[in-house]
Amino acid sequence: MSLKRTLGTCYYPEHWPEEIWAEDAARMADLGLTWVRIGEFAWSRLEPAHGDLRLDWLERAIDTLHRAGLKVVLGTPTATPPRWMLDRHPDMLAVDADGRPRGFGSRRHYCFSHDGYRAEALRITAILAKRFGPKVEAWQTDNEYGCHDTILSYSDAARHAFRDWLAQKYQSPEALNRAWGNVFWSMDYDSFDQIDLPNLTVTEPNPAHTLDFRRFSSDQVARFNAGQVAAIRAHSTAPISHNYMGRIVEFDHFTLGRQMEIATWDSYPLGFLEDRLEEPPEVKRHYARQGDPDFQAFHHDLYRAVAAQFPSGDLPRWWVMEQQPGPVNWAPHNPAPAPGMVRLWTWEAFAHGAECVSYFRWRQAPFGQEQYHAGLLRPDSVPAPGYHEAAEVARELATAPMVEMAQAPVALVFDYASAWAWAVQPQGQGCDYFRLVFEIYRGLRKLGLSIDILPPDTARLNGYRLVLVPAVVTLSEPLKRALAMTGAQVLIGPRSNAKTAALSIPLPLPPALPGLDVTVSRVETLRPDMPLPMAGAGHVTLWREELEGGAEVLDRDADGRPVTMRAGNLTYLGGWPDPAFLRHLVIRACDAAGVATLDLPPDIRVRQAGKTRFVFNHGPGPVTFDGVTLPPAGVLRQGPA
Amino acid sequence: MSLKRTLGTCYYPEHWPEEIWAEDAARMADLGLTWVRIGEFAWSRLEPAHGDLRLDWLERAIDTLHRAGLKVVLGTPTATPPRWMLDRHPDMLAVDADGRPRGFGSRRHYCFSHDGYRAEALRITAILAKRFGPKVEAWQTDNEYGCHDTILSYSDAARHAFRDWLAQKYQSPEALNRAWGNVFWSMDYDSFDQIDLPNLTVTEPNPAHTLDFRRFSSDQVARFNAGQVAAIRAHSTAPISHNYMGRIVEFDHFTLGRQMEIATWDSYPLGFLEDRLEEPPEVKRHYARQGDPDFQAFHHDLYRAVAAQFPSGDLPRWWVMEQQPGPVNWAPHNPAPAPGMVRLWTWEAFAHGAECVSYFRWRQAPFGQEQYHAGLLRPDSVPAPGYHEAAEVARELATAPMVEMAQAPVALVFDYASAWAWAVQPQGQGCDYFRLVFEIYRGLRKLGLSIDILPPDTARLNGYRLVLVPAVVTLSEPLKRALAMTGAQVLIGPRSNAKTAALSIPLPLPPALPGLDVTVSRVETLRPDMPLPMAGAGHVTLWREELEGGAEVLDRDADGRPVTMRAGNLTYLGGWPDPAFLRHLVIRACDAAGVATLDLPPDIRVRQAGKTRFVFNHGPGPVTFDGVTLPPAGVLRQGPA
Amino acid sequence: MSLKRTLGTCYYPEHWPEEIWAEDAARMADLGLTWVRIGEFAWSRLEPAHGDLRLDWLERAIDTLHRAGLKVVLGTPTATPPRWMLDRHPDMLAVDADGRPRGFGSRRHYCFSHDGYRAEALRITAILAKRFGPKVEAWQTDNEYGCHDTILSYSDAARHAFRDWLAQKYQSPEALNRAWGNVFWSMDYDSFDQIDLPNLTVTEPNPAHTLDFRRFSSDQVARFNAGQVAAIRAHSTAPISHNYMGRIVEFDHFTLGRQMEIATWDSYPLGFLEDRLEEPPEVKRHYARQGDPDFQAFHHDLYRAVAAQFPSGDLPRWWVMEQQPGPVNWAPHNPAPAPGMVRLWTWEAFAHGAECVSYFRWRQAPFGQEQYHAGLLRPDSVPAPGYHEAAEVARELATAPMVEMAQAPVALVFDYASAWAWAVQPQGQGCDYFRLVFEIYRGLRKLGLSIDILPPDTARLNGYRLVLVPAVVTLSEPLKRALAMTGAQVLIGPRSNAKTAALSIPLPLPPALPGLDVTVSRVETLRPDMPLPMAGAGHVTLWREELEGGAEVLDRDADGRPVTMRAGNLTYLGGWPDPAFLRHLVIRACDAAGVATLDLPPDIRVRQAGKTRFVFNHGPGPVTFDGVTLPPAGVLRQGPA
Ligand SMILES: [Zn+2]
Ligand SMILES: [Zn+2]
Ligand SMILES: [Zn+2]
Repeated sequence: MSLKRTLGTCYYPEHWPEEIWAEDAARMADLGLTWVRIGEFAWSRLEPAHGDLRLDWLERAIDTLHRAGLKVVLGTPTATPPRWMLDRHPDMLAVDADGRPRGFGSRRHYCFSHDGYRAEALRITAILAKRFGPKVEAWQTDNEYGCHDTILSYSDAARHAFRDWLAQKYQSPEALNRAWGNVFWSMDYDSFDQIDLPNLTVTEPNPAHTLDFRRFSSDQVARFNAGQVAAIRAHSTAPISHNYMGRIVEFDHFTLGRQMEIATWDSYPLGFLEDRLEEPPEVKRHYARQGDPDFQAFHHDLYRAVAAQFPSGDLPRWWVMEQQPGPVNWAPHNPAPAPGMVRLWTWEAFAHGAECVSYFRWRQAPFGQEQYHAGLLRPDSVPAPGYHEAAEVARELATAPMVEMAQAPVALVFDYASAWAWAVQPQGQGCDYFRLVFEIYRGLRKLGLSIDILPPDTARLNGYRLVLVPAVVTLSEPLKRALAMTGAQVLIGPRSNAKTAALSIPLPLPPALPGLDVTVSRVETLRPDMPLPMAGAGHVTLWREELEGGAEVLDRDADGRPVTMRAGNLTYLGGWPDPAFLRHLVIRACDAAGVATLDLPPDIRVRQAGKTRFVFNHGPGPVTFDGVTLPPAGVLRQGPA
Repeated sequence: MSLKRTLGTCYYPEHWPEEIWAEDAARMADLGLTWVRIGEFAWSRLEPAHGDLRLDWLERAIDTLHRAGLKVVLGTPTATPPRWMLDRHPDMLAVDADGRPRGFGSRRHYCFSHDGYRAEALRITAILAKRFGPKVEAWQTDNEYGCHDTILSYSDAARHAFRDWLAQKYQSPEALNRAWGNVFWSMDYDSFDQIDLPNLTVTEPNPAHTLDFRRFSSDQVARFNAGQVAAIRAHSTAPISHNYMGRIVEFDHFTLGRQMEIATWDSYPLGFLEDRLEEPPEVKRHYARQGDPDFQAFHHDLYRAVAAQFPSGDLPRWWVMEQQPGPVNWAPHNPAPAPGMVRLWTWEAFAHGAECVSYFRWRQAPFGQEQYHAGLLRPDSVPAPGYHEAAEVARELATAPMVEMAQAPVALVFDYASAWAWAVQPQGQGCDYFRLVFEIYRGLRKLGLSIDILPPDTARLNGYRLVLVPAVVTLSEPLKRALAMTGAQVLIGPRSNAKTAALSIPLPLPPALPGLDVTVSRVETLRPDMPLPMAGAGHVTLWREELEGGAEVLDRDADGRPVTMRAGNLTYLGGWPDPAFLRHLVIRACDAAGVATLDLPPDIRVRQAGKTRFVFNHGPGPVTFDGVTLPPAGVLRQGPA
Repeated sequence: MSLKRTLGTCYYPEHWPEEIWAEDAARMADLGLTWVRIGEFAWSRLEPAHGDLRLDWLERAIDTLHRAGLKVVLGTPTATPPRWMLDRHPDMLAVDADGRPRGFGSRRHYCFSHDGYRAEALRITAILAKRFGPKVEAWQTDNEYGCHDTILSYSDAARHAFRDWLAQKYQSPEALNRAWGNVFWSMDYDSFDQIDLPNLTVTEPNPAHTLDFRRFSSDQVARFNAGQVAAIRAHSTAPISHNYMGRIVEFDHFTLGRQMEIATWDSYPLGFLEDRLEEPPEVKRHYARQGDPDFQAFHHDLYRAVAAQFPSGDLPRWWVMEQQPGPVNWAPHNPAPAPGMVRLWTWEAFAHGAECVSYFRWRQAPFGQEQYHAGLLRPDSVPAPGYHEAAEVARELATAPMVEMAQAPVALVFDYASAWAWAVQPQGQGCDYFRLVFEIYRGLRKLGLSIDILPPDTARLNGYRLVLVPAVVTLSEPLKRALAMTGAQVLIGPRSNAKTAALSIPLPLPPALPGLDVTVSRVETLRPDMPLPMAGAGHVTLWREELEGGAEVLDRDADGRPVTMRAGNLTYLGGWPDPAFLRHLVIRACDAAGVATLDLPPDIRVRQAGKTRFVFNHGPGPVTFDGVTLPPAGVLRQGPA
């Protein structure tokens, strides 16, 4: 299975004089780009007043790009409603958890639950689809759902929609009271109209209340996007995409993956390292010009899984829609990438199966919020360092354009609903779902493994030899059946199958897995400075479960208490493993599964793409691995092209 | 003097099917429990709609418990008004200092100043008192006043009540202006209706303004509780209690102590260590599974003093109403207690004079906000570790049920109004009243002393040999007289008698104690990293006073400036002592007073209960003391039972 | 050029019984004071109800001071509008960035944009000017503009005034859209009435939007002050002043300097060290009783420059209006000054050209917000330690009253608008304009240099041998011309001339200085833990620019990339220098300029005042310099008096 690799960029013709469009297009083609994304922030220029449509300039821009041989992804401009929209819908703004409306003046200033704004978004989408549907090669809906913490809104629109959503789900207040356990503190409701959003309570609200609000909020995104998709499909057969972000877990991306042909994401390795990872300062310093060595890979694998949800017989289609090409402007600190990293990031995406890597943006903007965000060109149109690295990739691609892909030996289940459940009820500071899953992913990668990520309703595990199901708070029925039937080694826990769908503690106590006589009798959370030593390597930290039952004990802590217990191919893990304990767990599981592991130097990562193995040096110095010395930012391609 | 010791638990019949009530009751009796507290969160089930009373189930629950031989404490459910209450009184919510109403969805969502809600609280109290007054063995008003920072409310109801309170106190705006010194920044008022609550000012409000708001807020709690007490007394002769919390100083507990027969408190040693103590991380780690070695003892002594305010010739009656039996859910980190600690905590309460220790809760709840809060039973009704420790105490009590009590040799004055004064005008970060008094209490305990806590209006000091009066900002007339007359050694200061009742600086300058020629000529606060070395042991830190006058200088700092000065039995301390200087001060004072001190190992604490001495090992390892080796969580009982 | 030095104090007759005024005045005169500032917080006593004027007591107070031979500075009381003002103008309050009105109960609770309040302020100013204009020796407008973060207000009044200001500036929404680059995220406006204040947006607003709001806010202060100045001038020929604060950069002080004869500032060395400097804890501890060794000097030089803006042929007149005389009450920690520091601070001000140093305050207030703020007298009227140091200065002055002044060899440009630009668009945490300029100032001082600060529109650099222009984001035309013509050594950058007036990136790229072939091709910001080593001494930290061009490279980083480049006397600096690199830069520049540097011990600073050299020991221990040992707080005066 393979797919042709391409490069692209993001272009804003509305930012530049029309006189230079043709030259820009020619330079893009000359650089070896295939795709150009346009239009996603241009609403005020497409419709400067309600109903006053100015689409001609966009058509001329598309035509100009086409004439240069480029393909166009057209974005719906709904992430940036113009100022006049607020006059029509003054209550369309999202509201933050403190009750403050999130005003006009930047972007994403809308509440997903506002029907008036949603109708406007569908209207402009339909207008664009009708006019450009026959013309463009692909679509993007909106831009970066969830960026700037924009999924959860505490607006009146959200309040009313949430009540409707609850009424649909529970049918009666009594049923809701039972499901949520509202008897607990006299929190019973007589009517759905009494239910407020779960912000600004005296102490924490009922976790079942908050979890339902999280589910509702995710559903609102899916509903909003589905509307745009339908509006486009009415007029266009071109594939549709959305550009996701890094570590946004507030909505279920798999649901959106089912709606659209292509999943894309916006990869900013240096910004993300600084602003959304728990790594200690010395690690952030070590990788300040390289980015975290696993964060991009994780999202490549995650969004490949999201793309795979679209019902089609083909390979999952996923892209990097925005690839950082130089310093950005929005992180706490914004260094320049080390030389070669733009090329490395591009090849890493291809190694994980990307169809296209598109650089954000063509030319650095001299005005607006992102003036210090590099482009392929400087503001004075001189090529920036990233341009030259993109050109190098383009030359390399010319002789080896195909992506090979194959199922990985290891599968890791990722579940957005569990991220919400942990956030709603962390039980201890630092107990975060994404963090735990990502630490496990990193542990797998450090042992040279290639990984497929799977959604939580996965029904078939065929072909995998090792399956990890950490922290999935409520197992779906399909996954339960698949786990019961698989011959793969399964490592499950901690906190897996720990809760009912209403986030209460089930009886019998967790994990209640068929055939596995293990009971979590008690849960405790630990200060980060008091990790519990294992009898063998490493520690359990942050989250620890006391295990009982007749299953075989595999690992014990230094006090002799069981930490992992096994029945057949199923191993339950009763705690948050530190890197050393995790390494031990993975090596043992891989040995049992017959999966080879590698002893990688710290900065090295590999990715097996079919018969090709890619080796990447993410560190600031040269590293020797397998007899070969990779320079900083080095990329090694082994096996058939 | 002695009292029979008992055990109890907190039970929520409304959370469980009625079918299992009888078995639960039988198991409680079998475990050796005497008391069961019920009802305090059940309003929505007692009155699902206004006036629709459903009291029969509660009667059946009480009867079931009675049939098993258990005694019942009935709580008024006013900490959890049902949702319909908000429809009747939309403005009943407390408002936080940022001006945001504190909404429905958890508990304690009421403003003490709201007369409409207060009337509803009195109504339900009267209904319960009338129905169950002849039946139950004790009462509890409301639940944990002040928990979740619920004393200070910035609502309209509070604003109007504060104005009335000020009008009563000052009679004229001119008198208020004079008392507050409103001339300072043109802050004069022409009318009480112009006075706002002291939040959201540009910079700090007048400290006299804020202090009066603190006094008012405390008075509102006393008024609210007094109403409930009167409503109960109209129908019941059973003793009344309230369950206080740890380190809540926003209202004057002594005032409430005068209203009710029994003082109880809710003791969560592990949660409190994590979320409300200034100890450094390594200390929190050391005691993570034991709790602070002095925090519980302090509150035992404090609430014994609160209980002693009730006018009665008997021993003060105080309980632990909620004893942590395992991990809790609400602290930053929630580890399990070390084995034996539940037993130790129970015996420690008895050693300080507790009549009853009641475990919270009988069975871990599978729903609602406290799912990971342990009970004596697990959610599946299997005994949890705490159950077995409670059973051990029950067996031990069976042969030695009596509490011996006697006056301690050392008295420590505790004054809620001083906590407010320090909070309003700390003069330096970290200068907190509770912190200073608790550090002094800890210093006394580390020298093996048993302590009585006294209220600030104490008029007689008979029987004490050492009296400490740290940081009492304004001395009451009775206490001034008692100090003048006592033959005990008195250690007073820093910042004692430093302010007028209006929180201004008095003339002559402080401390203005008769017979003591000492003047605090200047006050400074110090960075925590710049403690001032003493000429002898230790340092002064955080708060330092410059002392003048003819009194004898006892201690000087390394620069020769006086830090303590004495006349007769009265010693003034002009700074915040660190542990080493404090130890020196206490040993010298005890020597002068003829009180013996002990050289305790760090984790050991003792409590003299009449002729019985209890020794407790609060540390994670075995400790040898006085020739005996105590295991971790060890409890040693010496002398007559 | 020289000026007579005097001392003064701040006095609040309204705080004390009239009976003691005369004695207070006599004691002031006896101490050797010349000036007394009064009245600035007394509005509620001057006009207890609207129109009810009570000016007689103030006249008696002035007369009493005059009779003792003292001169009076009368403050307009507009920083503390009385409570009745709010009834007349309920919407006069400033609003914070979270949208909360900043209420009555302290001071500065007004919005500069509120026309109703502004009219009241002008009214009371005119009343005072008319009554006391012929009588008082000087005026002060308002008090400490900007203290408590009071320049930026998000009120309705500010919103409407901002729209008018924008309409005046841009004339059409289209012009504004072009200037701001509103096409960027569809942020175009159709009308000025659609433009909101730049708070509470979803993510950062357009930096051009925020910068214009900053400019507008500064203009509002200038407008407010100009009104008062005009009201006073109508009735009085006495000089007018305002008392600025330390590190307040939210309005352009040079603009106000053009309005008034005298610039004063309020110097609180210990409070400022604690609450507004980035120094690490060990430095704050080292100087806890001394204050930062450069912060006062910087502001002396800055406000001398502000005073120099007033069109007059005379020496610039500047004072310290409030000199810290002991511990204050408002910093995180409030230690007492080391003995001698009050004298040192006073002499340091004189060495920098102060005409008067006035101690705040005469007597410590026993009530209100500043009870623990020392005065020259204690609350009981006994002299406090600061009194004796002031007396010592008075004795010293008696024999040497004249201040000598001369142009310094080194000039440093300071630009408030650049402070706003950096704050609006820092591009990295810690990248703050004041911090960078102050670090450079400190570097100059550590080499013994005396410095003149210049405004950003300086047109003549005659007489200077070294001129530093760091971080001035947009160079004014006069300064560009002056730099092109000067024969002085010029050190410019980083980020100098980096932006257009609309805060966009200019073409050609910066710095675009005539004759200097240097281009900043890329900007990056660095984690503070990753300074870039230079090939020679020191590092570049936080902010780094990549430089291209044909100019001579003076310094390279360890990787060989240019950091400074030169053409003739003009050197461009492409990064934020650490102290070691800065020292190297300054020494080289001074060598080239023929300016001598000194190798000062760490705690020593010098100031050349004409032919007199002052040497100050800012450290806690004795220091030997130039063969003389200065005790702690030592002041050495060398050369002709
Ligand atoms: Zn983006
Ligand atoms: Zn409780
Ligand atoms: Zn001041």
